[in-house]
Amino acid sequence: MKQVIPHDTIKRLALYLRSLRYLAKKKVEVISSQRLAERIYASPSQMRKDLAYFGEFGIRGVGYNVKKLIAEIESILKLKKKRKVALIGIGKLGTALLAYSGFEKFGFRISALFDNNSGKIGKKIFGLKIEDIARTKEVLKRERIKIGIITVPAADAQEVTDRLITSGIKAILNFTPRYLNIPEGIMINTVDMAIELESLTYYLP
Amino acid sequence: MKQVIPHDTIKRLALYLRSLRYLAKKKVEVISSQRLAERIYASPSQMRKDLAYFGEFGIRGVGYNVKKLIAEIESILKLKKKRKVALIGIGKLGTALLAYSGFEKFGFRISALFDNNSGKIGKKIFGLKIEDIARTKEVLKRERIKIGIITVPAADAQEVTDRLITSGIKAILNFTPRYLNIPEGIMINTVDMAIELESLTYYLP
Repeated sequence: MKQVIPHDTIKRLALYLRSLRYLAKKKVEVISSQRLAERIYASPSQMRKDLAYFGEFGIRGVGYNVKKLIAEIESILKLKKKRKVALIGIGKLGTALLAYSGFEKFGFRISALFDNNSGKIGKKIFGLKIEDIARTKEVLKRERIKIGIITVPAADAQEVTDRLITSGIKAILNFTPRYLNIPEGIMINTVDMAIELESLTYYLP
Repeated sequence: MKQVIPHDTIKRLALYLRSLRYLAKKKVEVISSQRLAERIYASPSQMRKDLAYFGEFGIRGVGYNVKKLIAEIESILKLKKKRKVALIGIGKLGTALLAYSGFEKFGFRISALFDNNSGKIGKKIFGLKIEDIARTKEVLKRERIKIGIITVPAADAQEVTDRLITSGIKAILNFTPRYLNIPEGIMINTVDMAIELESLTYYLP
């Protein structure tokens, strides 16, 4: 079953959830698929299709109960428990991500830092010690960390990825502008900020 | 014509381009659709469909000429000229983006900074003066800037967006975790790092 659900659907579930949480804060109790879909720039039919993979959550002609749908999606995405995350590459971008409060707010805590620069290894930043990249296996297994965020230089990205996977990492958030070879069973999301800009210029005069 | 091309296709064009540039550096001259598609985790049929919106670029049974396809995609995405970009919200994330060299490498130069914090306005950072957010209209028109990157707090995001649009901004890269209401003719891409993590946990045990 899992295999047939497109990753884009999973991503949109996270986006619906984001909007639903915002609506819940604003005391909205029920929302139509039209309005909820609109909030993430999707079509209502796309949204119904996305949710249909997991069951029947709305009431025809009424819409979705906001709180109930939040609980359903949190359960589908396994977001009920906090997750520890490793950050690999403590340069400018890595440090910025450490300072970024957004992850913690959504249940992710950066709990291990790695770098290969001997000038950085052993230093503390935001209360966390920077570990030697050579120690991923030991540290990640001890801390039971399954998610890694990669902010190393592009040229090191594949080597670091291979190392993380042999150290037990199952999901990778890749900030490097590089195609990464990964085996079956490992999931990767890439955030490429330049791509986002490049795909905007198409629409400019 | 423009309207019927899905935004996902435009984004994938930027991704093909990224891979093609890497291949060109590695002196690869020809690549099959199979291999090129694989590099961005797409299917070859998806890739052929994406390119077919713009013409016939490959040679059946041979593949694509790397240099030629780079030139074609750069032309489609209007990437031949450098673009000036404004950055709104000079907090932790904004400062990290300023330090990030990736944009410049791809032809985007952050050329104007804005904030609403009187303690920041007038200060210089990376050689650029932080302007008062109230002055967007004047500065953006003078500098002919059409692209804005928003790194303000979520609660301010819509107000800032509205202001940018009345100041002539046509494309927005949004780093806030907030749905933004935009009129027809304005393009928006959202980078939401927490969403990327949330959509990975689905695959974890």
